[in-house]
Amino acid sequence: MRSQSSEQSVPAPRSAPFPEDGEVAVLPVGDVHTEAGGVVRDVRIAVQRWGELRREPDGSTNIILVEHALTGDSDALTWWNGLIGPGLPLDTERFCVMCTNALGGCSGSTGPASRHPDGRPWGSRFPALSIRDLVTAERQLLDALGIDRVTAVVGGSMGGARALEWTLMHPERVGAAAVLAVSARASAWQIGIQSAQISAITNDPEWLKGDYHSSGGYPRQGLAAARRIAHLTYRGEQEIDERFGTDAQDGENPLGVFRDPSQRFAVQSYLDYQARKLIERFDAGSYVALTEALNRHDIGRGRGGLNKALSEISVPTLVAGVDTDILYPYHQQEHISRNIGNLLGMAKIVSPVGHDAFLTETRQVARILRRFLLLAADEDQE
Amino acid sequence: MRSQSSEQSVPAPRSAPFPEDGEVAVLPVGDVHTEAGGVVRDVRIAVQRWGELRREPDGSTNIILVEHALTGDSDALTWWNGLIGPGLPLDTERFCVMCTNALGGCSGSTGPASRHPDGRPWGSRFPALSIRDLVTAERQLLDALGIDRVTAVVGGSMGGARALEWTLMHPERVGAAAVLAVSARASAWQIGIQSAQISAITNDPEWLKGDYHSSGGYPRQGLAAARRIAHLTYRGEQEIDERFGTDAQDGENPLGVFRDPSQRFAVQSYLDYQARKLIERFDAGSYVALTEALNRHDIGRGRGGLNKALSEISVPTLVAGVDTDILYPYHQQEHISRNIGNLLGMAKIVSPVGHDAFLTETRQVARILRRFLLLAADEDQE
Repeated sequence: MRSQSSEQSVPAPRSAPFPEDGEVAVLPVGDVHTEAGGVVRDVRIAVQRWGELRREPDGSTNIILVEHALTGDSDALTWWNGLIGPGLPLDTERFCVMCTNALGGCSGSTGPASRHPDGRPWGSRFPALSIRDLVTAERQLLDALGIDRVTAVVGGSMGGARALEWTLMHPERVGAAAVLAVSARASAWQIGIQSAQISAITNDPEWLKGDYHSSGGYPRQGLAAARRIAHLTYRGEQEIDERFGTDAQDGENPLGVFRDPSQRFAVQSYLDYQARKLIERFDAGSYVALTEALNRHDIGRGRGGLNKALSEISVPTLVAGVDTDILYPYHQQEHISRNIGNLLGMAKIVSPVGHDAFLTETRQVARILRRFLLLAADEDQE
Repeated sequence: MRSQSSEQSVPAPRSAPFPEDGEVAVLPVGDVHTEAGGVVRDVRIAVQRWGELRREPDGSTNIILVEHALTGDSDALTWWNGLIGPGLPLDTERFCVMCTNALGGCSGSTGPASRHPDGRPWGSRFPALSIRDLVTAERQLLDALGIDRVTAVVGGSMGGARALEWTLMHPERVGAAAVLAVSARASAWQIGIQSAQISAITNDPEWLKGDYHSSGGYPRQGLAAARRIAHLTYRGEQEIDERFGTDAQDGENPLGVFRDPSQRFAVQSYLDYQARKLIERFDAGSYVALTEALNRHDIGRGRGGLNKALSEISVPTLVAGVDTDILYPYHQQEHISRNIGNLLGMAKIVSPVGHDAFLTETRQVARILRRFLLLAADEDQE
């Protein structure tokens, strides 16, 4: 199954140059063979790091690997602002903080919008990914950089799913893990709402079965619809209601004689704005590929089921969630914490913001990350 | 504003024949002038009743008016199975239980798919409705039937919104109200997710701006997408997850080398089934019209704000909600109960089912309705 194609496979490079501090490097990591039996040829992974790398004689490093969420990128300094830097929880005077753009993404790493080795965009030829495939690509990057082991892997949402898979796929290479605002597998509700987003994109006439990249068109309306739905799952309903309620958008009247999409409630304008921002920076094919990877998230698959897989996690792991999270409700993090083999700690982010609180409640996340690193260091010395 | 058109307006009929027990009657109620200044000419309202009508000398009757939810109809015996009948909580040996199809609907009452007086479908000419307009049409039906006052008005979800509006628009005509699984106004989150459903339909190429009715086409895909999203708000995420988890649909493999919409998770198949069922029985134009009415639901509009309006409710009102409701979270019913002028009682339906529990948890709803009628009778005697 690993190599069905007759094309020549690209071996992983032995040693890639280490990225400059703060600069995006895009490094070849060879072919990635997916869990389902597909191949992404000649993958490149975008990576950034902040802080000096230190290698210990035993192969370990001071790297903290930060994992981004669905529409994130390698620039963790921006999307996790206030948490990475000198004296901050992910202290770049002590650690080398590293972040890669996920396989399937569109911010430097190989994804559906990238060129296939034949020169045309991957488009519909891009295989379906699982969360494990994203970890595989990242592991191949560490191989290429000659990095055997990291101090910790940390992430929220899709990033948390990857952090959790790291602890099962490569426990010997991870000192500790912090897993935020995610579950041990997709829930049926998540699959349902995520599939609604995928359908919104694939039903757009400009999707062209995923091969729109050289068509001149773009499934803009579909991606916007997907983002509006997604955003409602990222935000707590009380927070959104406190901000917008039934207010009309300034200068518009959503209560006219006839329904008129140009006359909006304030919340519609807000969601349109979120959608517009995403369309400008994100590829619809990447959105579909990574949302599909979230649908396939299940650490129990092929490992004797969910709780058996959780019980076999030996990497010290801190689990955190948000009390108002609709998408990954807190009971899902409680489930992980009850069943995980090596629980380092449990933390609750208290916020009206909902799922996105792992990005926005900087002070609470800072405390959680400081505690995580203290506990992990303590564990390491035992 | 009340009558901008030069067409001849249709007066409300003085006395329509009272419907036969259990039979659907479709009765003319005249023109309905909407809150926003539109007119629906020559409206017909479908109505059913079970149990004999008794009129008291003071004009009151033994009618219990039951209000259906978004995609419901006048056949309350079916959708509220086990609650209406001899010896049941809405006891047809004591009460005349009556249910109308809402204005804008598609089960006998005038809606976008109905014929305009000019003979062509209303389509895009159908004005935007508010919840108040649905109550106005129903009030005009009671006028036509010569009914001054009902014992109670009862409903859940959109039916609850109408019951609440009855208490403010025509308090002198309602003895008591039971308001289930709804809020005093749309929340921003509801407007967001409902607007996503409207967009799914109006973005369907077969929508034709609402004028598809004589085109031979039908926005089937859009309505299906809307229903899939809606259903996820009607059901508790834990209940859906317990039933489907990450299971594959029988005979399908959602984990293949490539994403394939014909290879589904079980939850996707379930949502497709719900969508298919709705497409077969419901008009997309009605879905848009009534969803828009839910977006406009706000008992505070024009009444000095939400809490002032609530405080002015003098009709004895019981408020109930579902502990796991995502769409109308229980705090919204608590908000009504804290602020309403005449609170008859408060009840919580405890169920993993979510919003739909007001339809499915028959035993709990039965207890609530029995208590409601006891309390209302007691109140009436004071």
